[in-house]
Amino acid sequence: MDFVKVKNVSEYDGKEVKLRGWVFNLRKSGKIWFLVFRDGTGIIQCVVLKNLVDAEVFDKKTILTQESSVIITGTVRKEDRAAIGYEITVSNIEIVHVADEYPIGKKEHGADFLLSNRHLWLRSKKQTALMKIRHTVYYAITDYLNGQDFYRFDSPILTPNACEGTTTLFEVPYFDEGTAFLSQSGQLYLETGIMALGRCYDFGPVFRAEKSKTRKHLTEFWMMDAEAAYVKHDENMDIQEGLIRHVIRTVIERNEEDLKILERDIEQLKKADAPFIRMTHKEAIDKVNNKGGNLSYNDDFGSVEESMVTDDSDVPVFIERWPAEIKAFYMKRDENDSNIVLGDDLIAPEGFGEIIGGSEREDNHDMLLERMKSEDMDIEPYQWYLDLRKYGSVPHSGFGIGLERLVGWVSGVKHIRETIPFPRTIYRLNP
Amino acid sequence: MDFVKVKNVSEYDGKEVKLRGWVFNLRKSGKIWFLVFRDGTGIIQCVVLKNLVDAEVFDKKTILTQESSVIITGTVRKEDRAAIGYEITVSNIEIVHVADEYPIGKKEHGADFLLSNRHLWLRSKKQTALMKIRHTVYYAITDYLNGQDFYRFDSPILTPNACEGTTTLFEVPYFDEGTAFLSQSGQLYLETGIMALGRCYDFGPVFRAEKSKTRKHLTEFWMMDAEAAYVKHDENMDIQEGLIRHVIRTVIERNEEDLKILERDIEQLKKADAPFIRMTHKEAIDKVNNKGGNLSYNDDFGSVEESMVTDDSDVPVFIERWPAEIKAFYMKRDENDSNIVLGDDLIAPEGFGEIIGGSEREDNHDMLLERMKSEDMDIEPYQWYLDLRKYGSVPHSGFGIGLERLVGWVSGVKHIRETIPFPRTIYRLNP
Repeated sequence: MDFVKVKNVSEYDGKEVKLRGWVFNLRKSGKIWFLVFRDGTGIIQCVVLKNLVDAEVFDKKTILTQESSVIITGTVRKEDRAAIGYEITVSNIEIVHVADEYPIGKKEHGADFLLSNRHLWLRSKKQTALMKIRHTVYYAITDYLNGQDFYRFDSPILTPNACEGTTTLFEVPYFDEGTAFLSQSGQLYLETGIMALGRCYDFGPVFRAEKSKTRKHLTEFWMMDAEAAYVKHDENMDIQEGLIRHVIRTVIERNEEDLKILERDIEQLKKADAPFIRMTHKEAIDKVNNKGGNLSYNDDFGSVEESMVTDDSDVPVFIERWPAEIKAFYMKRDENDSNIVLGDDLIAPEGFGEIIGGSEREDNHDMLLERMKSEDMDIEPYQWYLDLRKYGSVPHSGFGIGLERLVGWVSGVKHIRETIPFPRTIYRLNP
Repeated sequence: MDFVKVKNVSEYDGKEVKLRGWVFNLRKSGKIWFLVFRDGTGIIQCVVLKNLVDAEVFDKKTILTQESSVIITGTVRKEDRAAIGYEITVSNIEIVHVADEYPIGKKEHGADFLLSNRHLWLRSKKQTALMKIRHTVYYAITDYLNGQDFYRFDSPILTPNACEGTTTLFEVPYFDEGTAFLSQSGQLYLETGIMALGRCYDFGPVFRAEKSKTRKHLTEFWMMDAEAAYVKHDENMDIQEGLIRHVIRTVIERNEEDLKILERDIEQLKKADAPFIRMTHKEAIDKVNNKGGNLSYNDDFGSVEESMVTDDSDVPVFIERWPAEIKAFYMKRDENDSNIVLGDDLIAPEGFGEIIGGSEREDNHDMLLERMKSEDMDIEPYQWYLDLRKYGSVPHSGFGIGLERLVGWVSGVKHIRETIPFPRTIYRLNP
């Protein structure tokens, strides 16, 4: 008899199967007891009836504990009342390991306790559902990009210079070469890749030594950067929109059960798979101020203002064409207004805030150099980056997605520390 | 007229198209000149005939330089002598940017010069081909694992403790928490993941502060770790074999042109897609010694000995069942011989050396603890790892693949510094 996974039991209706996994829960009552069983692919209720099994099997209810590992033999039965539509009538239980008393029970635990026991907390229904959605989001992002002729191009983590400011860099002593910095973004390196490959993306960990303690900040998180030659600002937003809608569709298609476990409003999420709204930074400032905000035309948006921009929208909102002075040096100026850069932020609805930042990049060597000088940047370490504007410069654009924030929105989870297996924050490096 | 990519020109035979990219090469001769054009997806020869274009277009041969960026308009013509089977008869050339004199010419350059100009060297035929093969290898690994019910589970990079020895760790000052170490392997964290999800993999950068200067060492490289609950030693090797054969097939299917550019012996590579050889460590030692080697039964293999083990094989060779004393603490003992652990190394043919290391993991709490104590390990930082053996321990196995070494073998490239976009070595942190 082959081993079967919970997610596939519907193919075995009426047949005897073997399942390998863990005791998620136990309920006992006289001549019948229930073993709620999980194997990573799903959860199913196993029914143990006194008149159907040997006494030795029936009495295992006195030995088994939550999280014990077991191999179940039994018959798959259709059961409409079950979430999964089936249950198992048990004929045998093989105990692999009897778990010690499990520290995470049904009572409420504090965040610190759960994070200190992250290696066990991951087994809970919600955390497992979040990891599965994270898996799908990662997959859907790469699936979309691969289909659009983007090549994976892993940018380095150990870097000699900083991309976005130096105050939030982690430093690493590096042999006789001095200090290396942990990458905050692979974008500049990706720009070298597209000159060889046309379109590229990276997708790996990035690091910010930020002392922020908000629910949206991690010191280590996963970032996807995409970059494309001969793509200008508007097409850049088209690619971003296509990608995010592909992610939403794929998650809804593959993770409906997980979304239900997380009590995500799936209908609301489905509404986001429609044409996104695009407004200029100036229009967004006006919108906020019309709703009682108090921003100037050179201000960025805080999370309160981001919500004011999106609270009447079911779809994400692009805020585009930003004041140059509050955006990064590499963004391309609007040819009709040099105070404006062709950047965009994509703001998720439902108060989840920014999920993408992107822009067309400055492709003129002299304008880029001038901008770097005006920001007092050290030019020599960026000579390789300037070189890209000396040897066959092309219009090009790109964007970056923070994986955890995107998973947070799609899942409806506000604390992004739950969207990564082992979160790292200013106070937490363990386990 | 839509823009067309070089890889798709066969769909436009006889039609006029527009292409966006770069001048790879120029050849001029009287009333005809040739612009070898690249766009990242491929290379195609564009023919400029004096009697077919305006004088202004024809004279662009005096302006254009290697690596200048151009938009070509022309008609796709079947041409059997061309590598790609087609060429373009040009009707117009729009110059986007005239490149300065390109520093990488046709003459031989030293390794240091090329690595210092890695941002430009990537545009060469061979380096671009390698990046495309790397893309496919990454894709094929995840494609295989996704199809085998493995969930992606990103292990952390900033870690409080070391997995494999402490002498080769990069250290990172971490706020008030002391020192963080850059991860050398996600394996221990993955083991937590499988207790929730059944099967998991990670795939990200890992770091070794090794002072090795061989062609096989990088300080930053990409590693895939896979781990599966209820999988024992033999099945663990089955999964590894299935994965590697899937990678070979996928690369041959998708990257034939790239393999040709690299002068890879494709027929030899195809032979590796057949059942792998499995021999015990003891058998491998005997084999080496029978060929004139001089190893004891507690020795590891150097690259010379690895080649002696594989030089009569077209397929990779598993060396399994190793002496416990030369393998890591977490490997499971053979139940019939406690001096042996159920580990395996997979050695590529053609002298490319180890591409996988794997093992069944010790799942018994007390035996694991005893092993850790006998190695004088600090227990407290690993309490979470020991916990996995207290709460529903299960037999489980896993393995790790170094992406660059695998890409090196598949591509037939000996220097793994060419298999990663921006290699980091003891003397190199730039660009």
